[in-house]
Amino acid sequence: MTKTFMQGNSSISFPHPVFIQGCASVVGKKEGDGPLGKLFDEICEDPMFGTDTWEAAESIMQKKAASLAIEKSGFKASEIRMAFAGDLLAQTAASSFGIAGMEIPFYGLYGACSTMGESLSLGAMTVSAGYGDPVLCATSSHFASAEKEFRFPLGYGNQRPLSATWTVTGSGACILSNLPPSPDHTKKVLCTSNGYAAITGITTGKLVDFGLKDALNMGGCMAPAACDTIWRHFCDFQRSPSYYDQIFTGDLGLVGQKILFDLLEEKQINIQTQHNDCGLLIFDNTSQDTHSGGSGCGCAASVLTAYILPNVASGKWKRVLFIPTGALLSKVSFNEGDSIPGIAHAVVIEHIPA
Amino acid sequence: MTKTFMQGNSSISFPHPVFIQGCASVVGKKEGDGPLGKLFDEICEDPMFGTDTWEAAESIMQKKAASLAIEKSGFKASEIRMAFAGDLLAQTAASSFGIAGMEIPFYGLYGACSTMGESLSLGAMTVSAGYGDPVLCATSSHFASAEKEFRFPLGYGNQRPLSATWTVTGSGACILSNLPPSPDHTKKVLCTSNGYAAITGITTGKLVDFGLKDALNMGGCMAPAACDTIWRHFCDFQRSPSYYDQIFTGDLGLVGQKILFDLLEEKQINIQTQHNDCGLLIFDNTSQDTHSGGSGCGCAASVLTAYILPNVASGKWKRVLFIPTGALLSKVSFNEGDSIPGIAHAVVIEHIPA
Repeated sequence: MTKTFMQGNSSISFPHPVFIQGCASVVGKKEGDGPLGKLFDEICEDPMFGTDTWEAAESIMQKKAASLAIEKSGFKASEIRMAFAGDLLAQTAASSFGIAGMEIPFYGLYGACSTMGESLSLGAMTVSAGYGDPVLCATSSHFASAEKEFRFPLGYGNQRPLSATWTVTGSGACILSNLPPSPDHTKKVLCTSNGYAAITGITTGKLVDFGLKDALNMGGCMAPAACDTIWRHFCDFQRSPSYYDQIFTGDLGLVGQKILFDLLEEKQINIQTQHNDCGLLIFDNTSQDTHSGGSGCGCAASVLTAYILPNVASGKWKRVLFIPTGALLSKVSFNEGDSIPGIAHAVVIEHIPA
Repeated sequence: MTKTFMQGNSSISFPHPVFIQGCASVVGKKEGDGPLGKLFDEICEDPMFGTDTWEAAESIMQKKAASLAIEKSGFKASEIRMAFAGDLLAQTAASSFGIAGMEIPFYGLYGACSTMGESLSLGAMTVSAGYGDPVLCATSSHFASAEKEFRFPLGYGNQRPLSATWTVTGSGACILSNLPPSPDHTKKVLCTSNGYAAITGITTGKLVDFGLKDALNMGGCMAPAACDTIWRHFCDFQRSPSYYDQIFTGDLGLVGQKILFDLLEEKQINIQTQHNDCGLLIFDNTSQDTHSGGSGCGCAASVLTAYILPNVASGKWKRVLFIPTGALLSKVSFNEGDSIPGIAHAVVIEHIPA
């Protein structure tokens, strides 16, 4: 009940590492064809995931990722103490008909494409305080359900400017616990001979609104929020970029990355050596025609679970800062001429030696 | 980091009370004309709240309630450590353009009309663990923005069956802290000579789906979830209904209340002596033509802040169980023929003597 593990105004440093016991990723065909294709747990060739609607497809994909993460961690769903999940759809319908239906005590979240950061933050807070262990943190997005929700019907075949991103069809799920993963479970890529991956701190996002209104330049809308969170993170923890081996934003894309670098330069922060963006990693922008890069809740979540966490567990990277970024728009707010504010939640993920 | 304060599978008993330092409610004219009219902090005669759109009206109302709760608690917005808020609109747009814009580290939630329970649960967990103090918990709904989001354009003048509820135009906000409110602040209705109101435990909701599909009978869709949470709450805490002076559900209305009683009877639980429903309290169903009762996130939130909390602080009620109920539908899920699952989060609010 002390405040000893709070840092600054908006960060928390956990007294003990919150281990990521296991994780899983499920993606669509285009993501499977991308540079990280071989790393995903499951690639579904059928964009409908065997269902009749895009929304149901996303729900199925999300439940698959969650079930797989639970299984890879050596648990049963009934042993999971709480779930923190959300998605991009109105009333987070993919989660309501997805993970929420797994009979786990459920907290529904909405943080746009920052949701994996929000989910991991609240999950780590829950585990570290002893409120529940293990917990499930997950999110998803689907290209077709997102286009239907926010933009144009797919059949309309609208033109996309070069600043536009491509919503990832993907879901990522993590199981958090106070205990490190046990080597008894062979599927545990997060239980290496070197060690484990664990969450050691968070910086909670604040809404940042630069007044941008272009829904086909989400990277530009979210970059100011990423800058704000990164800056507050370094202030709160009294760290500099060199503390981290890698700094991953969620889905700023090429356009957003450039803006982020410019904004950070104004604060005399340079993360160019360490920075990468999940949206730039998941697709080959040249051959896959994805313009500024990948986006969506599922972009950061699937890159985290397929690529980032295994490399932290193995010790390739000792310290990673993971900052999914969200653009808080709805089609109503957009059509009514509102701006597109951004939010970004930062999660510190560290290698813990075995 | 112990599990000593977990109870059962889905409940938490806090080791120290989490005090509600202050709270506020802002509602529309119809709510002001209802039986609780004199208790609300602010009644706005203009349903547009001085704005051009229903969505902006809801955002303004929500920010007013939050600002008032902060002010009544003797704080400045910059002193609030985290905010937990959400609403009914797609992508929780009322919150994104409302409380999220108050420069407080922000976690966006979606729990449909159960959001005040989710918000208070996560807020109390945060405060009790020492992660942040004070925190803001809030939600809102607006009759016109909700009708636009889920049903028919207002001008269409559609008929409403007797099972339909009337979405409350209202917002409620609470400030939680490990410390009791101080008598230095005269506006503190939650700092009485007798004592205070505090959260002492929670039971997290699970999704319950009985397969109902009638969006004009939300009480029926949510009653099974309320029953499940109440039943799990009594099991986890080993309590019976008589432990509580009052048990308030969120917005089951007349139809949902009857179904809840029937479902609880199957589990040999009878809460009829203690039960009331915020949706039945906020309107006079006979003279105000609100059919089954009031509904919406703002229903439970405004009744809690205007009516329930002051009566707990004064000691009129020693122990109250507050269970906002949510129906997890979207217009897309409804139009695609999906069922309407429910979720309900229970919060134990107790009188703490001065």
